[in-house]
Amino acid sequence: MRTALGLSRRGLGNVWPNPAVGSVVVSADGMVVGRGWTQPGGRPHSEAIALERAGAAAMGGTLYVTLEPCNHYGKTPPCTEAIIAAGVARVVGTLQDPDPRVSGSGYDRLRQAGVQVDLGLMADAARHANAGFFSRLAKGRPWVTLKMAISMDGRIALASGESQWITCPEARQIAHKLRAENDAILVGIGTVMADDPQLTCRLPGYAGRQPVRVVLDGKDRIPPGAAILSNDAPTWTDRDLGNGAGERPDPASMLAAMGDRGITRLLIEGGGNVAAAFIAADLVDEIICVSAPMVIGGNGIPVVGPTAATELAGLHRFHRVSVEPVGSDTMVRYIRN
Amino acid sequence: MRTALGLSRRGLGNVWPNPAVGSVVVSADGMVVGRGWTQPGGRPHSEAIALERAGAAAMGGTLYVTLEPCNHYGKTPPCTEAIIAAGVARVVGTLQDPDPRVSGSGYDRLRQAGVQVDLGLMADAARHANAGFFSRLAKGRPWVTLKMAISMDGRIALASGESQWITCPEARQIAHKLRAENDAILVGIGTVMADDPQLTCRLPGYAGRQPVRVVLDGKDRIPPGAAILSNDAPTWTDRDLGNGAGERPDPASMLAAMGDRGITRLLIEGGGNVAAAFIAADLVDEIICVSAPMVIGGNGIPVVGPTAATELAGLHRFHRVSVEPVGSDTMVRYIRN
Repeated sequence: MRTALGLSRRGLGNVWPNPAVGSVVVSADGMVVGRGWTQPGGRPHSEAIALERAGAAAMGGTLYVTLEPCNHYGKTPPCTEAIIAAGVARVVGTLQDPDPRVSGSGYDRLRQAGVQVDLGLMADAARHANAGFFSRLAKGRPWVTLKMAISMDGRIALASGESQWITCPEARQIAHKLRAENDAILVGIGTVMADDPQLTCRLPGYAGRQPVRVVLDGKDRIPPGAAILSNDAPTWTDRDLGNGAGERPDPASMLAAMGDRGITRLLIEGGGNVAAAFIAADLVDEIICVSAPMVIGGNGIPVVGPTAATELAGLHRFHRVSVEPVGSDTMVRYIRN
Repeated sequence: MRTALGLSRRGLGNVWPNPAVGSVVVSADGMVVGRGWTQPGGRPHSEAIALERAGAAAMGGTLYVTLEPCNHYGKTPPCTEAIIAAGVARVVGTLQDPDPRVSGSGYDRLRQAGVQVDLGLMADAARHANAGFFSRLAKGRPWVTLKMAISMDGRIALASGESQWITCPEARQIAHKLRAENDAILVGIGTVMADDPQLTCRLPGYAGRQPVRVVLDGKDRIPPGAAILSNDAPTWTDRDLGNGAGERPDPASMLAAMGDRGITRLLIEGGGNVAAAFIAADLVDEIICVSAPMVIGGNGIPVVGPTAATELAGLHRFHRVSVEPVGSDTMVRYIRN
């Protein structure tokens, strides 16, 4: 299942509004005979690919799959029928697919056909891997990850605006990978004006779908020559997402509009005022904090702008899920409690 | 040697201006027969204690010692003579003691007496364990550790000043242990006025020497009833350390004055302006950064106040030496490159 979850991550950012699923087929004599992951756009499904690779070797074998196989005719025939036709003896799963078109019926169909079904393996990891898909189904909005790339005292730039580079090259590679794993990237107009970023994934060899760029810009201030407009990945402003001209952007309604358009995973890259608006509205699900071994000091630009926090007890708490050295920097991941 | 280094740490904060040394005696047949560490005030030395514990079992055995044994008559007879008299066959050491009264002569004396001497084991760890002693000998000033206890965005309090508690109880225990391991604790008068701290080590069962409290207060503003004056541990102000009335305190001259008084390890606990002054002067050797899983936002109080930093390339770089989860918080230690 660990392998299947690793495979599933290859679909993140590429399959929205669909879930990113991974599958591994193990033959009756214990050999891995097929692997698959959701293909760009969401189809074919991982089960179909893994079973095709496995061919006759799937007969009597076990399928490990990170989400419930579908049981309805959509653009593809149901995966349950492919599993049954391949003669798989056992399916090891994690969670039910909360999509009302599936929601237990996939597992039921398999059991009816005599397939042994065992659920719950690595369910927490599977829930996190598809946090975006689940968030959109349950809350109508994407899973929101805030990226902080800071000095150890929480600054993203000097007072002069100089910010290249606070983090190390390895951390910047991870930043590009994060872009690839998200459906959309959000920045404020201030970041566009100050840094003129492309907000694309530019890892060597990366050929996946580029994330949608979303710019909080109630006043149409994106300069015509901005790098963010210079390639094929789409760019939306908060006005495209239903925000009226000149209005102060409302994080909750923007997220709902993104959810309507199918976005399941949103990465917030900055700047401080955007981060503050989402933190204050309690709309940040995950924080990835990369801190560099330097101190900028109090006249540097803070990673999170002013919030209306008035007491510690009222702050939203997160919990650490991992700590990882990344070159000279240190990366800590937090999830909202 | 790892055991000996662990023992040596028991002396930190208690033995200044002397080094904190640990010793382990292993008998000829491979049993640990004696352990010792520098006693409060600096005497007896660790070697004498470990050899006394070992008694006749030291004959033909090995002594592991974290710093060069002394070879001069001071308040105690030289440890080299005790080692030779005990019949120790081999001494495993780390570094030379840079004290000009020792400086290789201890090892020489042992070799002359036919003791096998092997040096260099865990030398880096031994250098760090006695960084304060070495700093004072080489630079005339204590080793300076800056403690940061912050939200993940680098804040030590809300705008209101509320700071109790950002960090978790486990982190606060470590803060008390840090106090015990330092000879002196430095805060600014602002911290005294805002928090009225005792700045003592209040771990259950702790009976060591309390650190000297140093308050940066050019204007004699410590309130007469301040907690910092309420117990037996001494309190110095920057004026006690040679700073003229009303002058802006100069970090370098304060550190030199502390060095003159025998202080080998200084812990800076805050606030932001004190941290900024020492960072800007490049007088911070080590940073212990404990970050809590919450975001305070840009109107909170920054851990480091304004510095004169004008370009990233000019910032002093540190490197991470350890990362450790501490309850819900994350502790990263950095040392100046």
